[in-house]
Amino acid sequence: MTTLNLIGAGNLGHHLARAIDKADDIRLSYWYNRDKKSISEPNHAIMVTDQLADLEAADITIVTVSDDAVGALSSQIPYENTLVVHTSGSVGIHDLDSKHKRGVFYPLQTFSKEVIMDFQDVPLCLEALEKSDLNQLKQLAEALGSKHYRINTEQRQILHLAAVFVNNFSNQLYRIGHEITDVKNINFDILKPLILETAKKVQDVSPYMAQTGPAKRDDQKTIRRHLKLLDNPLHKDIYELLTQSIQQTHGRKKL
Amino acid sequence: MTTLNLIGAGNLGHHLARAIDKADDIRLSYWYNRDKKSISEPNHAIMVTDQLADLEAADITIVTVSDDAVGALSSQIPYENTLVVHTSGSVGIHDLDSKHKRGVFYPLQTFSKEVIMDFQDVPLCLEALEKSDLNQLKQLAEALGSKHYRINTEQRQILHLAAVFVNNFSNQLYRIGHEITDVKNINFDILKPLILETAKKVQDVSPYMAQTGPAKRDDQKTIRRHLKLLDNPLHKDIYELLTQSIQQTHGRKKL
Repeated sequence: MTTLNLIGAGNLGHHLARAIDKADDIRLSYWYNRDKKSISEPNHAIMVTDQLADLEAADITIVTVSDDAVGALSSQIPYENTLVVHTSGSVGIHDLDSKHKRGVFYPLQTFSKEVIMDFQDVPLCLEALEKSDLNQLKQLAEALGSKHYRINTEQRQILHLAAVFVNNFSNQLYRIGHEITDVKNINFDILKPLILETAKKVQDVSPYMAQTGPAKRDDQKTIRRHLKLLDNPLHKDIYELLTQSIQQTHGRKKL
Repeated sequence: MTTLNLIGAGNLGHHLARAIDKADDIRLSYWYNRDKKSISEPNHAIMVTDQLADLEAADITIVTVSDDAVGALSSQIPYENTLVVHTSGSVGIHDLDSKHKRGVFYPLQTFSKEVIMDFQDVPLCLEALEKSDLNQLKQLAEALGSKHYRINTEQRQILHLAAVFVNNFSNQLYRIGHEITDVKNINFDILKPLILETAKKVQDVSPYMAQTGPAKRDDQKTIRRHLKLLDNPLHKDIYELLTQSIQQTHGRKKL
């Protein structure tokens, strides 16, 4: 039985606590948050605290606080020489206090308060300074049912950047779709199956092969008509730039 | 029993033929394509032809040829006064020859050769000049199991434009994610669950509410670091522009 301490009770903290609770061979000992009231639905076997001094060492301590707080918080953990991991895409492994065995346990996924996440759908990016620590993180990932990948700090920062493109920016394109259909009293629901299918397609086909549309076909007539239909100058710029990017990728001439 | 003629044997033609074959209360009479060999797996009850002159009138004729060919082809159909619909997002209803009762039957979805599409996941945008024709199209959509929406030509052109944003452009963002992870030998599979979850989220939550990340938080430190990590100037421009768009949407100050 691997024992875990959990630091932080944001979205990720709650999703992790729920997944740990359901998993075999791992058990949550302490769950710390500076505001205890933010910790909702704790299992009664877990010690909930708002005092770091209360914590007793566990096999692995998982720090889920905001990027800027990781370093200082890791120093305040009142034990040493056990494995302490952070869960951030952009913080380096050496930002953790060197009194600990250090590691990273970065889940590449978006978590909502409302939706219970199956950790089968949460790829875990693992990093550690020692091989035995990496093996311990692999076992933890497997206990949660997650796929895991060995990813170093440089690679992790690139993944975090790629996640901004495929998550934040795709979502903004959905938002633009919402804005331009709203103006003409069109129900955004009409676009939802297409959004889902677009994401499903690249689960099996590379996005290079999956591409279609006027930019790829270099259909200048449609491109010009679309640009004319856009009122927001920023939407126009985004249309032009992504069209140019598709044409660069597919070896078409530039706009 | 509603009889249908199908014109064209591209991706959409094949998906429609398969869906019609499975549905009750509708039946395909003729399937025309200028190259008969492109028509694969036809049901033997269907008359397959490469001669427009062979066609005999059906209740509804569905034209799935490319946008530029719709008008001329509709004139060559050797019968008149029956309902003829095209399936294009950008062609007007009046581009069909006026010898027909005219309509539009525009499926807002992306079709792959490889993946069988359940028409439950294909919203149909319907337009007709007469109420009785619109009702006939509604019945056809229902026989296929599709949700249907009454959409006029102007709205349809906006939907087609919105589809470029949520489909072609999102797919290009996935492609950029692929490119920047490839350079660092990172497996693109790591990003796939996030891509899918991002699309799933907006099925229930508006993209406005679903947004997260450095642009929305106005986290300039992360934004600057990300821009530094990008080598391709076009990727940098896309990052800046979509960041600006998120900040415009969420009332943050501009970059």
